Amino acid sequence: MQSQSTTNEASLLGLGAMGAALARAAATKGRRLTVWNRTSAKAAPLVAAGVTVAASVAAAVAASPVVIVCVTDYAATRALLEAALLAGKTVVQLSTGTPQEARELAAWATARGARYLDGAILAVPSQVGGPHANLMTSGSREAFAAAEGVLAEMGAVRFVGEPPGAAAALDLAVLSSLFGALLGFYHGARLIEAEQMGVDGLGELMAATAPAIGEMIRIDAESIHHGRYEAPEASLEICWRSMDLLGRHAREAAIDGSFPGFAAEMFQRGITAGFGDEAPAAMIKVLRAASAQKGAR
Amino acid sequence: MQSQSTTNEASLLGLGAMGAALARAAATKGRRLTVWNRTSAKAAPLVAAGVTVAASVAAAVAASPVVIVCVTDYAATRALLEAALLAGKTVVQLSTGTPQEARELAAWATARGARYLDGAILAVPSQVGGPHANLMTSGSREAFAAAEGVLAEMGAVRFVGEPPGAAAALDLAVLSSLFGALLGFYHGARLIEAEQMGVDGLGELMAATAPAIGEMIRIDAESIHHGRYEAPEASLEICWRSMDLLGRHAREAAIDGSFPGFAAEMFQRGITAGFGDEAPAAMIKVLRAASAQKGAR
Repeated sequence: MQSQSTTNEASLLGLGAMGAALARAAATKGRRLTVWNRTSAKAAPLVAAGVTVAASVAAAVAASPVVIVCVTDYAATRALLEAALLAGKTVVQLSTGTPQEARELAAWATARGARYLDGAILAVPSQVGGPHANLMTSGSREAFAAAEGVLAEMGAVRFVGEPPGAAAALDLAVLSSLFGALLGFYHGARLIEAEQMGVDGLGELMAATAPAIGEMIRIDAESIHHGRYEAPEASLEICWRSMDLLGRHAREAAIDGSFPGFAAEMFQRGITAGFGDEAPAAMIKVLRAASAQKGAR
Repeated sequence: MQSQSTTNEASLLGLGAMGAALARAAATKGRRLTVWNRTSAKAAPLVAAGVTVAASVAAAVAASPVVIVCVTDYAATRALLEAALLAGKTVVQLSTGTPQEARELAAWATARGARYLDGAILAVPSQVGGPHANLMTSGSREAFAAAEGVLAEMGAVRFVGEPPGAAAALDLAVLSSLFGALLGFYHGARLIEAEQMGVDGLGELMAATAPAIGEMIRIDAESIHHGRYEAPEASLEICWRSMDLLGRHAREAAIDGSFPGFAAEMFQRGITAGFGDEAPAAMIKVLRAASAQKGAR
């Protein structure tokens, strides 16, 4: 099989909700794709979109120069690819994982003669192919050059660096802030309910406010980047006061206080460390000190 | 003094960083303002912008039909206004507080013959007067009509309802999500540092991603509003897995794990309650149940 010439632009392994959305986005934009899934029934709806279905992982890998893998995790990716001949292939791995997992898979794939690109999708499946889907990649520049065309059909793709773990690190970091926003929002929604107001109105307001929040985070990131925490517009102590007020409201309204409790405790650590008058971004110093105590720095 | 005719459009009490920014924004746009501050030195830079400085709270209140108060909290507002004649005035209170505090101050001001508008500013002082400043108000519609013109110079102003606590509730709810995003971001920034990457790059990415996050929250709010949690694109269990992965990374990288620990624990509560296959917005049911256990529902 290794002598067979490749017939399609890219092969995609894994047709879960995300894999199927990626395949559909690329195929409907005219890309020639081969797909493989453990249960082939998932592939049937894609055949109408012009996709070729491979009978095995080995056949799917052989069919194209670029092999995109979208399965549960890095261990599953490695287990799948064990059976295939990777020499000369560009392997693009899109599962969520840690930077360390990305580095290990990069080394493993490179040892087998493949060029490796790690990727992370910041989107839910229905956003794939649309303006809200961001796709970050890192690893081999040659692999990026080979895969960019087909990946660009799936979302706004960017190459964030040669360290294979870079895309996974940025993915985890964005997820961290996203889930913080969500958990804070769930508390906010409960608060709004407790005041007999409509949560839909809060949703509209959050959508309107989100760009300003993104801008605030960008400014905080600049503070951290330059190590500047002096003379802030709103101090870390003011943040603590807001979260203390949120906790007071939760007690007044007799609603769950887990989120404000956690948030106030975090900012309290910043005040205890002497950063109350500094910018809230000084929280990074609290987190660094905690690492140092664990002997990590 | 009560017979003196009012001479300016609005009076503003309190020239902290936020009060001074509000006064400057309105004055530079041609609004005739009287200001008062406990220490009058803070008023000096505003005189050049055409602002009149009052010698006492009573004089400031007497000078205009609309009285805007921007001091530390509701207790400070009440202490200030005790000395003034409020009959016939429109009082606009812009301190951060709980809905209950807003309701109490509304009752207090109304009993003194004033019309009451509660307001909350979603901005830092440097954003006041610009496109990122949102100003929410609630309470008396007549008070809103009287104050809208001058408030509109300070930011995008909206009236969110007659219950005096509505603006404070929305303010707290937005702050809840904002601080969740910030605390998640600080963890993400620490993660990026630990991977020897630049935090400034994460800031740019967060600013680019923020509108998509806002849209995701809006969709979650719709789920909660309609009570629909079935067949989600990404399940609550997938959220837990992401936060568990974030915790695993923190251990791998030997960095502080407070944020992922909290987030994973919250989603774990959702899984334990049987909502693992539902939309993450089903977390609201977990929070409701916690309130019920406290006898609040």
